Amino acid sequence: MTRVTLPPKATVVVVGAGYAGLSAALALLDEDVDVLVLEGSDRVGGRVLSEQVDGDLVVDHGGQWVGPTQTRFLAAAERFGCATFPTYNSGDHLELWADGVCRPFRGAGPDDAPGVDAYVAAADVIDEMAATIDLDDPTAHPRLAEWDSETVQSYVDRTVADEDARLRLALAVQGVWTVEPRDISVFHLLFYVASAGGFDQLMETEGCAQERRFTAGAQSVALAIAGHLGDRVVLGAPVRHVETLDGGGVRVDTERGEILADHVVIAASPGAAVRIRFTPPLPQSRNRWMERTPMGDVAKIHTVYDTPFWRADGHSGEATAYGDNAVGVVFDNSPDDGSAGVLVSFVYADRQHRWATLSEQERRADVLATLTAIFGARAGNPLQYLEKIWPDDAWAHGGYAANPAPGVWTEHGATGWRAACGPVHWAGTETSSVWNGYVDGAIASGQRAAAEITTALRS
Amino acid sequence: MTRVTLPPKATVVVVGAGYAGLSAALALLDEDVDVLVLEGSDRVGGRVLSEQVDGDLVVDHGGQWVGPTQTRFLAAAERFGCATFPTYNSGDHLELWADGVCRPFRGAGPDDAPGVDAYVAAADVIDEMAATIDLDDPTAHPRLAEWDSETVQSYVDRTVADEDARLRLALAVQGVWTVEPRDISVFHLLFYVASAGGFDQLMETEGCAQERRFTAGAQSVALAIAGHLGDRVVLGAPVRHVETLDGGGVRVDTERGEILADHVVIAASPGAAVRIRFTPPLPQSRNRWMERTPMGDVAKIHTVYDTPFWRADGHSGEATAYGDNAVGVVFDNSPDDGSAGVLVSFVYADRQHRWATLSEQERRADVLATLTAIFGARAGNPLQYLEKIWPDDAWAHGGYAANPAPGVWTEHGATGWRAACGPVHWAGTETSSVWNGYVDGAIASGQRAAAEITTALRS
Repeated sequence: MTRVTLPPKATVVVVGAGYAGLSAALALLDEDVDVLVLEGSDRVGGRVLSEQVDGDLVVDHGGQWVGPTQTRFLAAAERFGCATFPTYNSGDHLELWADGVCRPFRGAGPDDAPGVDAYVAAADVIDEMAATIDLDDPTAHPRLAEWDSETVQSYVDRTVADEDARLRLALAVQGVWTVEPRDISVFHLLFYVASAGGFDQLMETEGCAQERRFTAGAQSVALAIAGHLGDRVVLGAPVRHVETLDGGGVRVDTERGEILADHVVIAASPGAAVRIRFTPPLPQSRNRWMERTPMGDVAKIHTVYDTPFWRADGHSGEATAYGDNAVGVVFDNSPDDGSAGVLVSFVYADRQHRWATLSEQERRADVLATLTAIFGARAGNPLQYLEKIWPDDAWAHGGYAANPAPGVWTEHGATGWRAACGPVHWAGTETSSVWNGYVDGAIASGQRAAAEITTALRS
Repeated sequence: MTRVTLPPKATVVVVGAGYAGLSAALALLDEDVDVLVLEGSDRVGGRVLSEQVDGDLVVDHGGQWVGPTQTRFLAAAERFGCATFPTYNSGDHLELWADGVCRPFRGAGPDDAPGVDAYVAAADVIDEMAATIDLDDPTAHPRLAEWDSETVQSYVDRTVADEDARLRLALAVQGVWTVEPRDISVFHLLFYVASAGGFDQLMETEGCAQERRFTAGAQSVALAIAGHLGDRVVLGAPVRHVETLDGGGVRVDTERGEILADHVVIAASPGAAVRIRFTPPLPQSRNRWMERTPMGDVAKIHTVYDTPFWRADGHSGEATAYGDNAVGVVFDNSPDDGSAGVLVSFVYADRQHRWATLSEQERRADVLATLTAIFGARAGNPLQYLEKIWPDDAWAHGGYAANPAPGVWTEHGATGWRAACGPVHWAGTETSSVWNGYVDGAIASGQRAAAEITTALRS
């Protein structure tokens, strides 16, 4: 992963060494295709980033979980011997409601808290609507334009009478899409729910997306794939310009020189990909899809304690927080052996926008105030405080994923979503029919792009 | 305008030689400030582009009109001696309705056509709501989040019962914003209406935005300003990277070398500006504002005839077209002396997306079919057919203007709209309180950015 000069040519160049790009390259290498991965930053993993902070303690600043239906991620972990363990999920979750009261719960919310039943009923309707979407051809849906013309905020205002249920739905949208309900259309919400296999898959732990974690961090699989690819991965080579050549193939211009290829896979974060110049210009639909699909806004904060003290109080460490403070959701992110206590706090969307303008001291005080209100005074005195503000990441430009604005699925989805533009192929979790927005979707997208190319090479 | 090597330093660098950038530079030069304009393309004018096609005949492929309240544009024209003349506005307009019937009209629509009264009533409500917005501080509006959370499509579906009136409102949105009603929020629509001084100002000719045209084309004023600026305008110098320096000032990196400056004004089209790299990264709000404010989609087609034959039939040449064909709006764009007949046809948004994927022959046939249906067989046999597809323009990336997606005003308007980021100042019509989206707004924005800088230089 340290080659300084680029070779003059590769059969396939992959732009971006996140899970999408690495998986595309791996699938191509498995078919003996000559492939080179160009990564702009100085590491692999993209929006997955594990940091070893203290001895054996690893924290995941980015994507971190894997669920039982995320079979591609699990298969990659198994192939490269990366161990997983169950997310700590014993005891009660805690909910700090807008009234300042902290209530224990399991499932969708506390039985004695406002709005839970109406929230569950609304989620059921979302599931029913989502189930009607064909994941392989989402824009064929007869209600595409109707559902894509209304924001989730308008839809919830129109269909959910219970104000407290609306608050709950807003946090769900913030937590899953890292945007406000006003930022995405009903259609995008439904597509995303469908691609995960249902609303609960997105929200829950056991049997769902948050079921397991990686012993050595979620980046460990990416590092293992990159190790397997060896010097086929070049770091520190940002791609500036991709030129489709008249005689076939592409010229890829990087800050480290140029390289020719028969095919290129753009697997960079959408926030980076939109800044690459293409010659000739991309078809309007692909270009507008990219321009109108901005990254979400999330920050993750890890607080480290000598022990997961909340467990002794009968708490799972999972919590939700409403109100004015920044934190929306908390999980127990302690190591498997419980040798330290780690909480991860998520700050989303509007609350992230406000919080990110504070000084580091103010940001820390804001997060610790919420943790103290939920878990008591001990939570306010961590041994370590670590934050990762994804909108400020120079390569990802945000997280978790990019979300098409209202109207974009209707206007540009049919051809702009992921159809190859000649020798230019598109990967990235946002182009996946399954687990869109997740690592598993990234892997699926890389495999799909690789299959496009191997099919073309054989023809 | 041909200097090959950049000077090492200027007090102010302006990026982009459209009306915003040229006006900023002109205002600075008027104050004896040392300024240099860097333009990526090989011409000035930005989204205003006049072409001399045949002897004296000039067609305007981009912005072309000036209205009586657009005092900045009129003042610039007067200063540089650029003549204007009234848009031809005698006789009846024609409306090709969805039922295939072509009806004459003046004002909002034919008296005997469906939906006109309800359309006018809806426009009145829009005017009333728009009048409550403070143009200097739009995000202070108490209903900002409410109006910015709903798409115009949802709002119209909810408030306008008459289906035909909804069709009329959709064409109005397409014609003014070059997007579909699902793409923008109610708040953005209202702000834009307010910034123009009312709905009729946007839609009408006499006394309104389409009142007058430029004898030598609307680019003539830009060319005159550029001539006045002389070798302070450098063409063919695309800016790639703007670095704010620790010691103050900026380093501007172009494909033609770098230049230092105390201040920089980014006056490029939003579609180009979003692709410039900034070090350190821009504040989240400015960055997200830019990323989530995509360009609209419009194409302009000129058809040239030996004479404005429609005038003899008692027609103004202005027409609106509903239905499946591409053209939405037509105007008489003949030269002042009537020495030739010229019609300009506008193709917007979704219809532009479909039309732009056709072959040139199919695009021409589609446009001529509509013109024939409106103006008769003679319209189908032009001497010349000229098209400009703005989304494919490598520098503008679309037109007329860029429109914030739903939620963007709420989340990022207060600081992301136009507040300077240290020595980095923002111009462009999208940053204007008045005539946002128009040449007049571009000029206002350049003058405002220049004033920011002269104030800073004096302090």
